[in-house]
Amino acid sequence: MTYCVGLLVEDGLVMIADTRTNAGLDDISTYRKLHHFNVPGERVMMLASAGNLSVTQSVLSLLAEGVPGADGEPPMRFVEAPTMFQAAQLVGDAIRRVRAIEREGFAAANLRFEVSFLFGGQIGGEPMRLFLIYSAGNFIECSVDAPFLQIGEHKYGKPILDRAVTYATDLYDALKVGLVSMDSTMRSNLGVGLPIDVAVARRNALDLEVSHRIEAGEPYFHDLRERWSAALRAAHRAIPRPPYGPAVR
Amino acid sequence: MTYCVGLLVEDGLVMIADTRTNAGLDDISTYRKLHHFNVPGERVMMLASAGNLSVTQSVLSLLAEGVPGADGEPPMRFVEAPTMFQAAQLVGDAIRRVRAIEREGFAAANLRFEVSFLFGGQIGGEPMRLFLIYSAGNFIECSVDAPFLQIGEHKYGKPILDRAVTYATDLYDALKVGLVSMDSTMRSNLGVGLPIDVAVARRNALDLEVSHRIEAGEPYFHDLRERWSAALRAAHRAIPRPPYGPAVR
Repeated sequence: MTYCVGLLVEDGLVMIADTRTNAGLDDISTYRKLHHFNVPGERVMMLASAGNLSVTQSVLSLLAEGVPGADGEPPMRFVEAPTMFQAAQLVGDAIRRVRAIEREGFAAANLRFEVSFLFGGQIGGEPMRLFLIYSAGNFIECSVDAPFLQIGEHKYGKPILDRAVTYATDLYDALKVGLVSMDSTMRSNLGVGLPIDVAVARRNALDLEVSHRIEAGEPYFHDLRERWSAALRAAHRAIPRPPYGPAVR
Repeated sequence: MTYCVGLLVEDGLVMIADTRTNAGLDDISTYRKLHHFNVPGERVMMLASAGNLSVTQSVLSLLAEGVPGADGEPPMRFVEAPTMFQAAQLVGDAIRRVRAIEREGFAAANLRFEVSFLFGGQIGGEPMRLFLIYSAGNFIECSVDAPFLQIGEHKYGKPILDRAVTYATDLYDALKVGLVSMDSTMRSNLGVGLPIDVAVARRNALDLEVSHRIEAGEPYFHDLRERWSAALRAAHRAIPRPPYGPAVR
């Protein structure tokens, strides 16, 4: 299982991804799911993946080597995409290309071709953007009204995002709420686990401001989890007990 | 969509269910999903349903009229089941019976036969029990280590239950946390909505202590939602911002 969240607020972009990959309960590994394609001063791009590991790795390799064009056009590498929109299209193209190769084998093995990507960043003078790219290669874009997108095991961590994140949220507050969302997910689904990769890019900086891996036992994240648990306990204790009385039957 | 949660703590049983039923986004109705079968002094039983409404209603009707036995035994009505275990089996029998009738038509219409039930209560001197009954008619039982069960849209409301509910939790605190869990679910999934039905039975009372419908605008539930939102805002504001600095690439 996987959980990745991207938050695009006024001041910039945050992406957070776990690293747990499993093929059955007895085959658990750590794989990086959050990748950067960073050319300081020119572009900052982050790509997080969920779904079948063989597919997401093939998509990443294709993006690195270059995705062949449709009409005999030369292959385009991800870091050469002229705009964020074209880069998102390129991810979609790469997914479709891998699907064409794998379709028959997946069908024979009764495997589902299921992947999704969060793709965010900024290229040159164009706006910062955040996309969610589906298995079919199509994609949607984050808006000012709903300034976050999620892939993977997204439900456990959504309530806190729904409540606490707006477009005006401070960049590091967005990171903090994203980590609370990750914590909620890890508590409810053992398939999502540490270490966690984190990246932050400030709008118009065209560079990464944070690229950090949170390992088990890291003091800040440990403290965040403890404080959040204690605050939730205090919060529900402070609510009066329900006044409902005997039976209206 | 549906969300129902049952909590079996030391002092008794709480069940909470929403009432929203939809067949497409433009066909939304209110249907009771939480039912009581109560014979004060003899038994208290609560049954909450999720899934296809035609199936859950047929199961309920069968349970009321009596489920025919396997080997020509006379039909048994739900309120006559001698033990909670046999009552849970009866729900499973009713599901299998409805499935046998509907299988062909559902297949022709490409419908999935998907239902689930929470069934809790106490009969005579036997222990209070809480079961989750699946589409196949099989079921699991709640334990002291995990004193709640959920059906329907369960993920949004699970983190708070994971953190806040233990077997030792006070009965009305369990009700309160269950309502917070319902609130989280309603905020994140529009298919789950008011009114909410609530039932409480104290252990060994063999009667309902609360049977209440929370309508929109009810002061206590409104206040709970406001307080919970405010407390969550305060909680994440009180956590220090992440100290992560520039780029370990």
